[in-house]
Amino acid sequence: MAAGKRFSVIYSLTGSEKEAMQKAKEICVEQTIEFPTELVKSEYIKSNIVGRVESFKKSGKKHIVEISYLNETAGGELTQFLNVVFGNTSIKPGIRLEKLIPSKEIFDIVKGPRFGVAGIRKLAGVYKRPLLCSALKPMGLNVKELSELAYKFALGGIDIIKDDHGLANQPFSPFEKRIEAVCDAIRKADKETGHRTLYAPNITADGLNTIKRAKFAKEAGAGSLIISPGLAGLETMRLIAEDDKIALPVFYHPAFHGSYVINSNSGISHYAFFGQLMRLHGADAVIFPGYGGRFSFSKDECASIAAGCRDKFGGLKPALPGPGGGMTMERIPEIRKFYGINSVFLMGGGLFSIGADITENCKKFRNLVR
Amino acid sequence: MAAGKRFSVIYSLTGSEKEAMQKAKEICVEQTIEFPTELVKSEYIKSNIVGRVESFKKSGKKHIVEISYLNETAGGELTQFLNVVFGNTSIKPGIRLEKLIPSKEIFDIVKGPRFGVAGIRKLAGVYKRPLLCSALKPMGLNVKELSELAYKFALGGIDIIKDDHGLANQPFSPFEKRIEAVCDAIRKADKETGHRTLYAPNITADGLNTIKRAKFAKEAGAGSLIISPGLAGLETMRLIAEDDKIALPVFYHPAFHGSYVINSNSGISHYAFFGQLMRLHGADAVIFPGYGGRFSFSKDECASIAAGCRDKFGGLKPALPGPGGGMTMERIPEIRKFYGINSVFLMGGGLFSIGADITENCKKFRNLVR
Repeated sequence: MAAGKRFSVIYSLTGSEKEAMQKAKEICVEQTIEFPTELVKSEYIKSNIVGRVESFKKSGKKHIVEISYLNETAGGELTQFLNVVFGNTSIKPGIRLEKLIPSKEIFDIVKGPRFGVAGIRKLAGVYKRPLLCSALKPMGLNVKELSELAYKFALGGIDIIKDDHGLANQPFSPFEKRIEAVCDAIRKADKETGHRTLYAPNITADGLNTIKRAKFAKEAGAGSLIISPGLAGLETMRLIAEDDKIALPVFYHPAFHGSYVINSNSGISHYAFFGQLMRLHGADAVIFPGYGGRFSFSKDECASIAAGCRDKFGGLKPALPGPGGGMTMERIPEIRKFYGINSVFLMGGGLFSIGADITENCKKFRNLVR
Repeated sequence: MAAGKRFSVIYSLTGSEKEAMQKAKEICVEQTIEFPTELVKSEYIKSNIVGRVESFKKSGKKHIVEISYLNETAGGELTQFLNVVFGNTSIKPGIRLEKLIPSKEIFDIVKGPRFGVAGIRKLAGVYKRPLLCSALKPMGLNVKELSELAYKFALGGIDIIKDDHGLANQPFSPFEKRIEAVCDAIRKADKETGHRTLYAPNITADGLNTIKRAKFAKEAGAGSLIISPGLAGLETMRLIAEDDKIALPVFYHPAFHGSYVINSNSGISHYAFFGQLMRLHGADAVIFPGYGGRFSFSKDECASIAAGCRDKFGGLKPALPGPGGGMTMERIPEIRKFYGINSVFLMGGGLFSIGADITENCKKFRNLVR
């Protein structure tokens, strides 16, 4: 059989040159035939199905390898593409998935972000500055309190008001009642201001309820959605993002996903995980913990997330990088300079700590990003 | 409001006593209100919703903390339970989730393994020895070759024949044709031997196709299923495991899930991840890479997986631990002693490397575990 078309993956490997090359060869087998190569009878399998080391070089203390795989190994499915890319190798130490280089055939599996940066800007009517986002919290407030907060945020000019990712369907603020009340509150504020505020209800739920909640939110008039696919499943996020009837911008939240990126010698790079992987699964915006806040991501890691959201990636639209996790007013000018205007800035607690008038605080936030 | 019932989580923390206590306090807030505590007005939220340090002690180089959370924070959903347990904290270094201590109310959310150890034994008709499993591979074989292999395995007395987790719906062996052919081959062998062999097709797929494949496999006569929820989603595995019409034993495969356990100072313990978490999501058997093979898990880690599968955990049935990933004939006596009889042993390549007669090799495998 003729040689087929292939896609590639870049991995970084720890150890000496010899150890790293050994790891590279093991990846080629582990990710495909998972079988002693010497026992394979088929020449086609040996020379096509088994992964192929395309390049190998030293880079700092590590080695960087590009391995290619036959398109057919993915069988036209994103889950199986990820399986070939990192399935069993995710369980091996000293190997980090750095970058995906999908072929046209792999990109053809997915739709990618429906709105992307330009689409979200158009919906929000905001073109020349970063977008502003805040979160309805703390968990434990009731529907009335949360919708009053949403009203204040919207009056103050927040572009995207999201449920805190911990608001689900708890007795203190049941999903359907909350979504209806917050949508009403935001409509009322928008009438007064003439803006269009996007509400992003948290649709993360068990089983097929995530999809049901997305549909309910759409019906209720929410302008976008937020989901934690670490909990609800990456494929569930993609189903919702690609659903033409739902057709709302999807904000990705990283809850329960940190283990993939937290150790630099294993797992998946910030670039590939938050940028490439989430775009393949249809995220229009990617919330992540920015440097200098409560979390530990470095400046370089945050820059690489933004690059992964924005770099050319097949024909997929760019996603909005959304740093959060400890943003304060004082840091806005620096953060604005760092991420640039094609970003969405998420300020939660920081909007509350500078004074009792939330709407005034939101206006300050807005003036700072102008 | 009166104090409510709570569930608990054990975390291990790196750093000095002071640093570890600081981390513990941060977890209490991060996993619940995600908001500056001093700005919370409600006494109910402060004293009930915020996580509570129940105990804190030194253990080796780390500190161990038990933190409790109000049942209502989980809102009756497993996804939100996991969000409270480890959502944002998964993104923080130096914190490992060691053990879940769910309350009755949390256990009530799930059904757990439908079959468990006793149920799988009954289906396979094997009571007094470990079960035997092998995998159809390598990827790239066609349907005829794979079904011939399944026939040989079944004749040789393999109890569970699973698709290699890399067999999806590729052009060389499309899902539906493969499942039908392998089911036929196994039925034929079972008629000759009088045994009942369980075939576990790999149903991992994109979107809702995983559920469709589970139903197709059931219709075709497969005796069990294997799924990689790292790819298809944990909730998808649970939907299938809890579906009374599908009602087949579910074998868990760890593809794309390694990043959760691979670093001992972050992520989730082998005990909680492979044992507790997979039982909550309905896995009847848990495939994992055993010590001493191609992977890096230690003896202690493997023992803890087996314990997580077997320990009393609410009213949930125990799951079968299924070590694989580099098993050979020579190692069987030692492995049998280590894991005990309530296990399923997965030998892949090792069954091929000792001679050309696969059926004879399977019989050897079987004699060794007796």
